[in-house]
Amino acid sequence: MAGRDAEGERGTVVTPSAEFPPLDADEMRALRRIGAAWRAARRGRRPEADALPVDPTLHPAGRRPVPTRYGRLAPISMFRVEPGELVATEPANVPGTRGGRVLTRIRRVLFGPPLSSAAVLYERMRKLVALPVLSSDLLSSVAYGPEAMLAVLLLAGSGALGLSLPLAAGLVLLMVAVGVSYRQTIRAYPHGAGSYIVAGDNLGAGPGLTAAAGLMLDYVLTVAVSVSAGVKAVTSAVPELNAWTVPLGVAVVGLLLAGNLRGVRTAGNLFVLPTYAFVVALLALLAVGYARAAGRGFVPEPPPPVPAVEGLGLLLVLRAFASGAVSMTGIEAVSNAVPAFRPPEWRNARTTLTWMVAMLVTLFVGIVGLVHLTGVVPTPEESLLSNLARETFPSGPWYGLLQAATALILLLAANTAFNDFPRLLFFMARNGHAPRRFLHMGDRLAFSNGLVALAASAALILVAFRGNTESLIPLYAVGVFLAFTLSQAGMVVHWRRRRERRRLAVNAAGATMSGLVLLTAAVGKFTEGAWVVVVAVPLLVLLFRAIHRHYRILHRSLALHPPPPGAPAPPMVPAPAPPGAAPPGGPPEEEELPQQVRHLIVVPVARLNRASLRALAYAASLGQPTLAVHIAPEEPEADRFRDQWREWGDHLRLETIVSPYRAIIGPLAHYLEALHASRADLVLTVIVPEVVVGRRWHRPLHSRTEQRLRAALRPLPGVVVTSVPIHLAE
Amino acid sequence: MAGRDAEGERGTVVTPSAEFPPLDADEMRALRRIGAAWRAARRGRRPEADALPVDPTLHPAGRRPVPTRYGRLAPISMFRVEPGELVATEPANVPGTRGGRVLTRIRRVLFGPPLSSAAVLYERMRKLVALPVLSSDLLSSVAYGPEAMLAVLLLAGSGALGLSLPLAAGLVLLMVAVGVSYRQTIRAYPHGAGSYIVAGDNLGAGPGLTAAAGLMLDYVLTVAVSVSAGVKAVTSAVPELNAWTVPLGVAVVGLLLAGNLRGVRTAGNLFVLPTYAFVVALLALLAVGYARAAGRGFVPEPPPPVPAVEGLGLLLVLRAFASGAVSMTGIEAVSNAVPAFRPPEWRNARTTLTWMVAMLVTLFVGIVGLVHLTGVVPTPEESLLSNLARETFPSGPWYGLLQAATALILLLAANTAFNDFPRLLFFMARNGHAPRRFLHMGDRLAFSNGLVALAASAALILVAFRGNTESLIPLYAVGVFLAFTLSQAGMVVHWRRRRERRRLAVNAAGATMSGLVLLTAAVGKFTEGAWVVVVAVPLLVLLFRAIHRHYRILHRSLALHPPPPGAPAPPMVPAPAPPGAAPPGGPPEEEELPQQVRHLIVVPVARLNRASLRALAYAASLGQPTLAVHIAPEEPEADRFRDQWREWGDHLRLETIVSPYRAIIGPLAHYLEALHASRADLVLTVIVPEVVVGRRWHRPLHSRTEQRLRAALRPLPGVVVTSVPIHLAE
Repeated sequence: MAGRDAEGERGTVVTPSAEFPPLDADEMRALRRIGAAWRAARRGRRPEADALPVDPTLHPAGRRPVPTRYGRLAPISMFRVEPGELVATEPANVPGTRGGRVLTRIRRVLFGPPLSSAAVLYERMRKLVALPVLSSDLLSSVAYGPEAMLAVLLLAGSGALGLSLPLAAGLVLLMVAVGVSYRQTIRAYPHGAGSYIVAGDNLGAGPGLTAAAGLMLDYVLTVAVSVSAGVKAVTSAVPELNAWTVPLGVAVVGLLLAGNLRGVRTAGNLFVLPTYAFVVALLALLAVGYARAAGRGFVPEPPPPVPAVEGLGLLLVLRAFASGAVSMTGIEAVSNAVPAFRPPEWRNARTTLTWMVAMLVTLFVGIVGLVHLTGVVPTPEESLLSNLARETFPSGPWYGLLQAATALILLLAANTAFNDFPRLLFFMARNGHAPRRFLHMGDRLAFSNGLVALAASAALILVAFRGNTESLIPLYAVGVFLAFTLSQAGMVVHWRRRRERRRLAVNAAGATMSGLVLLTAAVGKFTEGAWVVVVAVPLLVLLFRAIHRHYRILHRSLALHPPPPGAPAPPMVPAPAPPGAAPPGGPPEEEELPQQVRHLIVVPVARLNRASLRALAYAASLGQPTLAVHIAPEEPEADRFRDQWREWGDHLRLETIVSPYRAIIGPLAHYLEALHASRADLVLTVIVPEVVVGRRWHRPLHSRTEQRLRAALRPLPGVVVTSVPIHLAE
Repeated sequence: MAGRDAEGERGTVVTPSAEFPPLDADEMRALRRIGAAWRAARRGRRPEADALPVDPTLHPAGRRPVPTRYGRLAPISMFRVEPGELVATEPANVPGTRGGRVLTRIRRVLFGPPLSSAAVLYERMRKLVALPVLSSDLLSSVAYGPEAMLAVLLLAGSGALGLSLPLAAGLVLLMVAVGVSYRQTIRAYPHGAGSYIVAGDNLGAGPGLTAAAGLMLDYVLTVAVSVSAGVKAVTSAVPELNAWTVPLGVAVVGLLLAGNLRGVRTAGNLFVLPTYAFVVALLALLAVGYARAAGRGFVPEPPPPVPAVEGLGLLLVLRAFASGAVSMTGIEAVSNAVPAFRPPEWRNARTTLTWMVAMLVTLFVGIVGLVHLTGVVPTPEESLLSNLARETFPSGPWYGLLQAATALILLLAANTAFNDFPRLLFFMARNGHAPRRFLHMGDRLAFSNGLVALAASAALILVAFRGNTESLIPLYAVGVFLAFTLSQAGMVVHWRRRRERRRLAVNAAGATMSGLVLLTAAVGKFTEGAWVVVVAVPLLVLLFRAIHRHYRILHRSLALHPPPPGAPAPPMVPAPAPPGAAPPGGPPEEEELPQQVRHLIVVPVARLNRASLRALAYAASLGQPTLAVHIAPEEPEADRFRDQWREWGDHLRLETIVSPYRAIIGPLAHYLEALHASRADLVLTVIVPEVVVGRRWHRPLHSRTEQRLRAALRPLPGVVVTSVPIHLAE
C-alpha cells in the first residue's frame, strides 16, 4: 500500500524467493560501509588462520563416503557440485531422524515426490480453456442461488413466490452492472486486480485489509457452501445418504486438501468436462422444461400451498434479493487471473468475462422462470435443481447426469477457493499483513500452510452449521459483497484521479448496487448469521494490523544501518576495565563488527565428568577469558567440589555459588545477569554440556538442565548460549 | 546392591547433596592425569589473556546496581559474598520471567517461603512420641481390617461369621510372629531396615526391587485405603455425604499433598493426640461393649440373617484370612525408622514395636470378639466400627468422638505414606533404580517429585475404584505381604550367613507365614483385583532395571578416564589436512583437552541483516576458521545473495547451497553431516542467530528456524550449536 509501491511492482507473480526479499538501496549502502569496517578488523590476519580445515564444496575427488556413527552413509551424494555452489538433491530433504524419515515416506506416498522450484508454472490459457476454469465458481452458484432466494420468499407463503420474477430482473441488472464494472477493472489492472490490491491501492491500507478479510471469509465460505451444496446434489439423488451429510462434507474437504497439497494443477482439461457438462445438462433441462411449458401455453402450475410464517414486508424482499445475489459469487475470478490469459491479456480476459456473465444470466433467468412455470418449491430434503430435474426428466439418464455434473462443478468451485485463498495469503504475507510462513511453498510447490488453514476453517464451519447450505448463505453474501463494493469503490477513486468521468460512473453504479446488497445482507440477515461476518471482519483487520506492526518493528530492528563514523576499534582482547569505570562500547546486541565483540565465557559445571570436561576444553580452546561456575546445594558439597577442582589443577577461574534453597537455574541466571549488568558491553557465552539420549523414554530420566537454562537465559540481552553435546552410546 | 556397598554405607541419611555424588578413587586419579595434560596446553598462555574482564565475585565495592534492559535492578543483591564463594539469597530463586515470578508468588503463598538446606532435621524421638508417630498406620488398620475379614465370611451367609474367632486367633499368631521377626531385623539393621534394603542386601538386586515394587504399591494403596476408610468413617456418621465419597477422597489426597509439599514435619505433637484419642475411644468402646455383654452372660446376639452367595469352602476362609491380615499393615514402620530413636536406638525401637504389637492384638481381638457378641454385620453404607459404636453408645458424644478419632488417625496413616514413599524413591534413585529427579529436594526441603507422584497415583486409584475400601483390600494385601515376605526371607539369609540358627528359625517362621498369606491373597483374590498387583510388580521391576541400565551406561559414558599416554598435543590451529588423508585425532566427542579441539565454525545465513551480521561478527571474533552457508530456494536468489556478499566485502568464505525443493533444515543438517564425515575430528560449531520476541503470540509469526535446526542437529556427534540472540525492542 502506501510506501509499498516497490513491492506492488512485483504484482501477482508467485515465486519461492519471496521468502528472501532483496535488500533495498539504503541497506546496500549500509552493507558496504559495514564491510569497510570489517576490513579494518580482518586486516593483519594471517591467511592460514582463515584456511578451512575441510573442503566446503565436498569435492567428490576427495574422500569416499564413510558410514557415520549412526550407521548411515555420509550424505555427500546428497549434493550435486556445481560451479560456485552446491545443489541439494531430493534425498537431502529427508530428515535425519528415524521418525522424520518415516513421516517423509508417508507424505511422499500421499502427496508425491517433491517438485523443484524450476517447475513453477506460468501457464497461459486460451479463452476456451479459461472459460471453464474460471467460470466453475460463478456458474455453480446457480445451483444454490435461486433456491436461496425462493426459500426466503417462501417464508411469506407460496403466494409470495410470484415476486421471484421481478427480483430476478433486479438481479440480472446487478449482474450486468457488476460485470461491466469488472470489465473496466480488468482494463485498468492488467497485472491482476484482486479486491485486496485494487481497494488497497486506491482507498488505502484499511479498506484493502477489509476487502482481504471479506475475501478470506468468502473463500472459506465458498468451500463450505459449494461442498454442502454438492453433497446436497448427491443426497437429493440418493436420500439414504442424508444422515451422512456432515461426514461426507468433511471428507470432501479433506480430499480437496489432499489433492491441492499434492498440487492439483489448475489444468484446463480437468475443468473443461464438468463445467461444459453442467452447462449442457442445465440448458437441456431448460429446453425440455420450456418446451413442456410451451405445450401448456406457458401457464404457470400453481405451487403447492405453503403457509406463511412471516409477513411479506420490504425487509423480507430485500433479504430474498440478497440471498439471490449469491448466484453471482465467483464473478471476480477473471479479474484475479488476467495475467494467466494469452496476450493481449486484458482483451481476452474481458471477452471471457462477457461470455461468463451472459451464461450466468441465461442460466439464472432460465431457472427462475422454469421454477415459476412448474410450481416447484424448495424443500429441506431435496435441492430445488434436483426437484426441477425430477419434474422435467421423470425417467432416463438425464436426471442422474445433471446431478452428477452439479456435484462435480460444485467440487471444482470449492477447488477454486483452494487456489485463490493461499495466493491471497501469499500477497498479504508479502506485505507483512499475514504470518510469513504463508510465503513458503511446500515441497510440492503448493502453499501448504494456506491450504491447511483453508481446509481447517471450512471443515469447522461445515461441522458448526451441520452442512446446511441455507444457513451458510447469510454469511456468504456479506463477505462477497464487501469485497465487490470495496473493489469497485477503489475503481471509482482510480478513475477520479484519472478524471475519467464515464468510467467512474460505471464503477460508481456497480459500487452503489453492491453496497446496497451488502447493507441489505448485513442488516437483513444480521440475526440469521450475518453477525458472524460483521464481527469477524473488524477482528481480522485488527489482527492483520497487529501482525503488520510486529513485522514492521522486526524489520526496523533488523535493518542494516551503517556503523557510526567514530566506531571504536579496540584491540581484540581488551584490558580488563578498572572496577567502577563506565563500560566501553555501546548498548548490548549492537555488535556488527568482530572488533566490537568482547568475550566472557562462562561454563556452568555441576560435576566433573566427561561431559563437563569436554565443555571446559571447548571453552578453553576458544582462547577467551573463561569462568567456571558451580552451584552447590550446601556448604560441604561446595568444599568437596573445590577440592576436586584443585586436584584437577585449577586451570580455569572457578566461582562457587551456594544455593541453600537448592535451585540451580534461578541463581545461575541471576548470576549471569549480574555479571552482565556490571559490564553491559560484554558478550557472555554460556557453554552448557548437554547429554543427548538416544531414546525418547530416557528423557524423563534427565534433568534437562540445558533446556531449562536456555529458556531462563533467553530474555537476557547479550547472552549467547552454546550447547556442547555428548551422545550416549546406546 | 552388589558393588554398591560404598553407597549402602550412607544408609538412610537423606541429604540434598545426594544429587552430586562424589568422584570415586579411580576418577580422582584420572582427574589428576587429565589436569596434568591440561597443564601442557595452558603453558605459555599470557596471564593477561586469562584475566577476566569482570569481577566474578560481584564485589559490592564495585559498581552500584543499574537497571537492566527489562527494567529490573541488576540482581547483585541476590548474592551474599562470602570468603571464596557466593551464597544465593532467597530472591535469587525467583525466575526472571514474568510468568515464572507469578507462579513463584502463588507457590510461596500456598507452600510457604523456601527452606535452607541447613534446616534438614535429624530429630530423635522419645519412645512415647515415637509410639503415636509410628503406630498410626498400624493401629488405624483395625478400622478396616476386621471389617474386610467379616465381609468375606458374610459371602457364605451369616452362619459363617462364627469362623471369625478362629481366624482372629490365627491372625494374632501371624501378628506375633511377624512382630518378633521384625524385632530381630531391628537388632540386625540398626541403621534402618526397610524391606528394599534388607531384601536387596541379602537376596540380591532382583528381590530388592521386587520388595521395592511391592512397597511402592503398598504406599499408594495405604493412601487410597486410609483415605477411603477415613471418608467412610465420616459418611457413616453423616450419610448425606455418601454421594460425595470420591470428590471428598480426592480432596483429602490433595490436602495431604499440599501439606507435605509445604513440609509438614512429622512432629510428634501432631500425631500424639489423634492416635491416643483413637486408642482411648476404642478401648472405651470395648470396655462398655464387653460390660454389656457380661450383663448378658456373654451370650452372643445372633446376627441378622444374610443369605449365602458363595459356598463356605477353604478358599473363602483363606480369602477372609488374607483380608483380615491387612489389619497388620504398617507393622514395618518401626524398622524403617530405627535411626530416628534416641540411643540406644535399636533397643528403644524394639520396645516400641512390642508395645505397638500388643496394642494391635488387644484392639483387633477386642473388636472381633465384640462384633461376635453384638451380632453386628458389615454393610456397604456404614462401616463396621461405626455400626458397633452406634450399638454400644446409642446416645452421647462418644459415638461422634470415636468417628472423628477414626477419621483423623486414618488421615495420619495416609500421611505416613507421604513420608515413606518419597524416601523409598530417594534411596532407589540413589542406587540408579529410579529417575534421578527423585533425589531433588524442593525448596521446602520436601521431595516434591515423589510427593506428587504418590498423590497422583493414589487419586487415580481412588477414582478408578470409586473410593470403595472393600474393593481396594485385595490389591493392598498382596503388596504388603510381598514386602514382608521378602524382608524376612532376606533376614533368613542374613542369619544363615552368620550361622545363628535360633534367629534364623524365628525369621523363617515369619517369612513362611507371610509368604502363605501372600500366596493366599494373590491366588484367592486374583480375580477380585489382586491381578493388578501381580501384573504391576514385574512390570515395575522391569522398569527399575531398565532405568538402572540406562544410568549405568550414562555413568560409564561420562566417567573420567585418564588420557591415553601418547595423547597427541597438536598446535591449536592445525594445518588443513590434505584431502584423502586419514583424519587425525580419535573418535568424536573424546576431546577432554583443549589442544584436542579442532574448530570449524559454520554460520547459516538466510539474509544479511543485523541478526546475521551479529552472528558473523561473533563467529569472526572467535578467531577460528569460519564458513558461512546460505541456502537458496532457486538459482536467481543464490546469485542475488552472492552479489550482496561481494558488496559486503567477502570477508568470510561463503558456500551457497541451492535447495530446489525449498527445504532449509534438511539440506543444512545433511551438509553439516557431510562436512563432519569428511573430517570426523573437527568440532563443528554452528552459530545461529535467534530472534527473541517479547510476546507469546508473536511466536507463530516466526519460522523458529533456530529451534528446528537445533532439533535436527541434536543427533549429530561433534556438532556444537550456539545461538546468538537478538531481542526485539517491544
